[in-house]
Amino acid sequence: MLNPADSAFVARLADSLPAGTLREAEPRYLEEPRGRWQGQAGAVALPRSTAEVAEIVRQCHAARVGVLPYGGGTGLVGGQIMSDGPAPIIVSLERMAGLRAIYPAENVAVVEAGMILATAQDEAAKLGRIFPLSLASEGTARIGGVLSTNAGGVNVLRYGNARDLCLGIEAVLPDGSIFNGLKRLRKDNTGYDLRHLLIGAEGTLGIITAAALRLYPAPASTATALLAVPDPAAALALLELAEGRAAGMISAFELINRAGPEFLAEHMPEVPLPLSPLPDWMVLVELALPAGFEAAEPVMAGILEAAMEAGLVADGVIAASQAQRAGLWRVRESIPLANRKVGAVSSHDISLPLSEVPAFIPRADAALAALGDFRINCFGHLGDGNLHYNVFPAAGRTKADYLPLREAVKALVHDTVHDMGGSVSAEHGLGRLKVGDLERYGDPAKLAAMRAIKAALDPHGIMNPGAVLR
Amino acid sequence: MLNPADSAFVARLADSLPAGTLREAEPRYLEEPRGRWQGQAGAVALPRSTAEVAEIVRQCHAARVGVLPYGGGTGLVGGQIMSDGPAPIIVSLERMAGLRAIYPAENVAVVEAGMILATAQDEAAKLGRIFPLSLASEGTARIGGVLSTNAGGVNVLRYGNARDLCLGIEAVLPDGSIFNGLKRLRKDNTGYDLRHLLIGAEGTLGIITAAALRLYPAPASTATALLAVPDPAAALALLELAEGRAAGMISAFELINRAGPEFLAEHMPEVPLPLSPLPDWMVLVELALPAGFEAAEPVMAGILEAAMEAGLVADGVIAASQAQRAGLWRVRESIPLANRKVGAVSSHDISLPLSEVPAFIPRADAALAALGDFRINCFGHLGDGNLHYNVFPAAGRTKADYLPLREAVKALVHDTVHDMGGSVSAEHGLGRLKVGDLERYGDPAKLAAMRAIKAALDPHGIMNPGAVLR
Repeated sequence: MLNPADSAFVARLADSLPAGTLREAEPRYLEEPRGRWQGQAGAVALPRSTAEVAEIVRQCHAARVGVLPYGGGTGLVGGQIMSDGPAPIIVSLERMAGLRAIYPAENVAVVEAGMILATAQDEAAKLGRIFPLSLASEGTARIGGVLSTNAGGVNVLRYGNARDLCLGIEAVLPDGSIFNGLKRLRKDNTGYDLRHLLIGAEGTLGIITAAALRLYPAPASTATALLAVPDPAAALALLELAEGRAAGMISAFELINRAGPEFLAEHMPEVPLPLSPLPDWMVLVELALPAGFEAAEPVMAGILEAAMEAGLVADGVIAASQAQRAGLWRVRESIPLANRKVGAVSSHDISLPLSEVPAFIPRADAALAALGDFRINCFGHLGDGNLHYNVFPAAGRTKADYLPLREAVKALVHDTVHDMGGSVSAEHGLGRLKVGDLERYGDPAKLAAMRAIKAALDPHGIMNPGAVLR
Repeated sequence: MLNPADSAFVARLADSLPAGTLREAEPRYLEEPRGRWQGQAGAVALPRSTAEVAEIVRQCHAARVGVLPYGGGTGLVGGQIMSDGPAPIIVSLERMAGLRAIYPAENVAVVEAGMILATAQDEAAKLGRIFPLSLASEGTARIGGVLSTNAGGVNVLRYGNARDLCLGIEAVLPDGSIFNGLKRLRKDNTGYDLRHLLIGAEGTLGIITAAALRLYPAPASTATALLAVPDPAAALALLELAEGRAAGMISAFELINRAGPEFLAEHMPEVPLPLSPLPDWMVLVELALPAGFEAAEPVMAGILEAAMEAGLVADGVIAASQAQRAGLWRVRESIPLANRKVGAVSSHDISLPLSEVPAFIPRADAALAALGDFRINCFGHLGDGNLHYNVFPAAGRTKADYLPLREAVKALVHDTVHDMGGSVSAEHGLGRLKVGDLERYGDPAKLAAMRAIKAALDPHGIMNPGAVLR
């Protein structure tokens, strides 16, 4: 079992590190965005170098003290908060936020793990490149965290998840050794891929301290459209049509359910809705083309025309200016904010095989209707089969009224997803929230292998104790 | 230690499986393309189902008998041949070659691991899709093998390596348990990514029995050009220029050194060379566009014009017909055949950070010139930083003359690659050939973690003994 990071241990650790590396954790390290968990008072370490991270982990390993890796603190599943158990050392990489090197001809940036995601985007932009990972918390989330959770966001359809945007990592392993895997190679078949093992491991197998990130040339022209579709099946047929015409150029394909704009109208009336009457289902599509092509707008117009002919799109608007484009994105990006104002009974970050999406939605809707009176806002990254299927109180009621139903709602949605070959954590990870889901839905051979790997690499279980695996 | 698969064990195993599952291994299972290794006489198992694979592995695990997974037998590093040690059971998946399901709307095909790569390509083509993995041995290599070695080939620049083309796998783990990870999901963050651990593990952590493969819409128009460049630095500048104009549309960017066409002229004069006089360096570039765009040829012409203006390209030809396109590819694809006729002193499948390529080539050339009189054919997938830097005898001499220098040549090339941040196995894997290279060049923390993972998942070391790790 683990020992708590008591004052004697913290003092000893502090003595072996530069002054100011350890301090009492301020409240911000003990809170998380959804307010479900509260961390324990204790010490936070703020190392300035990989060697210091290694020293901290080495001492925690020797003393069997837990290590809680901390990035931007934006995780939604409690992976960054330990509310019980022996007090850990929180290790925040916020002082390791530097750009180590950037190679425009290679489309690679080597950054420290504490760099904020938006900063990485900015560093790329300075050289006419993009780092395409983009998500709501990009102004706060840090590279180490987005890699450890294999974050997704709106550009996955074209550029992949966080793991696909990383060529190499440097990491401190649970015994304090340093894995020097900061390769800038597109191809490297020399043994097991530790990078892919640590990415998505949510800090339970080590702390990522730096990464070689893939950049891409900045697109030269963009076309953005909001299209009304009769139903999710038509949205998927539209995706297939759009991919046939512009595969590799579609950077976003986002589903919006009428509940989203309705919530906006209720709680954020300052966000204008571009389609009237409000359709039941909409898709936000974006194309982004490089400089060797004519403007993106005619390609989008061709997609729209073909889709209308095929009866897949009933109404739609193609942004004619940057301001209109921003307006369309504002609708999509405001939906999670409106959701928070309404207050969800239960939120679900799920994915499904693409062709199962049209059957899933009515099946889950019907099962929920049998359970109670809900409003459902189902939206998200349809191009990736990733839906945020979020369940809200009926109009005029509050989430407090539904507290007794919350676990049943979650189980019903997750059971349905699992039954249809989907995942109960598409892009947020397991953290501490979904440890039970992994046990319930995970393949037994996979679980056994995960436990064997965890025991082999972290025999004392010091790394992010209680996350992912119990 | 392992026990040999003696006649008593083979008889017992045969009894528990359908008649005809086990038989004496024919010579084809005991040979490999480069003729360096010769397998031991013994038994081959030819299971028809995942359950039968599991039963074989379970019994081998219990009896501590080695298991040698066998795909198409095309590996170049001896991963499929055990020439010494206790005789293993060879497990060939050739009877498990079926298409389980195909989902055109999802761009996914679920195939058994024994399917030949070209068959997977054909199955996709029937539905207007492509499975973009493409390599010289595609008519013989099988899906399980290309995944286990994370194969590369000519389309990696656009579509990624084998691992990037696989959404999920089913595999038998070393204890005989079945990992049901055959997901068709673009996003799934539920624990450690076993798929990425088994892909590239070269059969040392289990046997992949089926895979969910990513398909893509077939391109509607293609443009192929062979362009003469002054040197590799210009080739890289051309790549940057081409990506600025057509990022995401470049499906091949292959470097050709004049030695390649010279070898063709000597040994395969039936292959015509399209550029005269023969340049020192050439690049084969291919663009492939979806249906929503005008033809690819004007985009290629724009790249060529800009590159000529910038002094990056001195001469070039854009294929004006499918026959011309095939002629350009024939040059590229015949080079390995000509190489074999010349007979290499030492061949190297290396990768480098892209911007190190121009410095690497003259540095390695100069170091080799100090060692002896060689001809060097340096060609390959420049867009991926992956070169086949192959060293040949001087004109009029044979590889036998150079046998005493072979190890020194290899060490010199690999030392130089390692020193410049590259990899000594870009796309072929380690097999048995490069086990020593991993020990010499591999990161010590990575090696320790690999050994710990291997011991945790395969405590008796039955899976592909002696490959990857000693």
